[in-house]
Amino acid sequence: MEFPSKLLEDAVLEIAKLPGIGKKTALRLALHLLKSDEQTTKALSHSLLQMRSLISRCSSCFNLADKDLCQVCQSHNRKKEMICVVEGVTDLMAIENTGQYHGVYHVLGGVISPMDGIGPDELTIEQLISRVALGKTEEIIFALNSSLEAETTTFYLSKKLENANVKITSIARGVPVGSELEYTDEITLARSLASRILYS
Amino acid sequence: MEFPSKLLEDAVLEIAKLPGIGKKTALRLALHLLKSDEQTTKALSHSLLQMRSLISRCSSCFNLADKDLCQVCQSHNRKKEMICVVEGVTDLMAIENTGQYHGVYHVLGGVISPMDGIGPDELTIEQLISRVALGKTEEIIFALNSSLEAETTTFYLSKKLENANVKITSIARGVPVGSELEYTDEITLARSLASRILYS
Repeated sequence: MEFPSKLLEDAVLEIAKLPGIGKKTALRLALHLLKSDEQTTKALSHSLLQMRSLISRCSSCFNLADKDLCQVCQSHNRKKEMICVVEGVTDLMAIENTGQYHGVYHVLGGVISPMDGIGPDELTIEQLISRVALGKTEEIIFALNSSLEAETTTFYLSKKLENANVKITSIARGVPVGSELEYTDEITLARSLASRILYS
Repeated sequence: MEFPSKLLEDAVLEIAKLPGIGKKTALRLALHLLKSDEQTTKALSHSLLQMRSLISRCSSCFNLADKDLCQVCQSHNRKKEMICVVEGVTDLMAIENTGQYHGVYHVLGGVISPMDGIGPDELTIEQLISRVALGKTEEIIFALNSSLEAETTTFYLSKKLENANVKITSIARGVPVGSELEYTDEITLARSLASRILYS
């Protein structure tokens, strides 16, 4: 692609480094910014820089935080005795969006995956064990994605925590609400049957 | 959507103002920047700010330019007697990418569209007429998109230029190279027949 301007080219190449954005989309975005008033670009750049330099990790649960503790850990309305273990911040946000969970979280930062060179030390596993060791935790809920690596991580963590005298649970796997049994895959349906719940 | 951090929320809202980017994509991009090293965000913000504040319009053809004249107008290898009239910078870039055009351009900045409140004064029509009035232009090639507004603009401009003693042409409309006649729409095929070219 030939660019009429070096400055435009630089901007397009930088935008195109973002995941899922190709050169054509990057060009469209750059031209949009050029058309809009200068304040739009300034506000965008400013917010990106502010976010990158000021956001840190919550010192307790490793969620994103503007201060030392994240909003969830700071809140007085959350049950600190219940810890939901998630892989990443987007999973935490998905659970928060349900509005149904009132405990706190622990963000692992991924799952154990030797193929990708991620061992227990790359994750916040040690910090979770230290948190539980304080003795105030009653229940740990695993809310990891469905993958072999996640299963390994759950197994590793439950082994590490077996002497900690806490209840360990995992979110239910089953047929999604609104789905038809006919179109549900066999593994999900089998799991759903195996972990059936008492109705009356 | 609930955000764990105000700074993240601000950044996501700013990113989501870009065309074609929703909140979910904006969040994905913001989290990507948070994961990458700080330099990535700095380089992106810097290039956007530089582009927005330093790029100007070429004083001759209104292409994007880093200096007073754009790269095309600056070049000694381009035929200044041939002006290709385009709507926008992306159209100019599309023609440049063919590598087959060796004249210069004139970027109109749109087409006459009373419905959108765009009259001849909102476009660079007056400047094109002044350029032609210098007497050095031999041919004007219209390379506008296919729309009623573009036809109106072509008609308006050709009227304005009819006393200027220049050849006025328009890019050919026809069956795209590689397309099958069977699947070409009637209007294109009819135009393609009407503007048939002499083969031998």
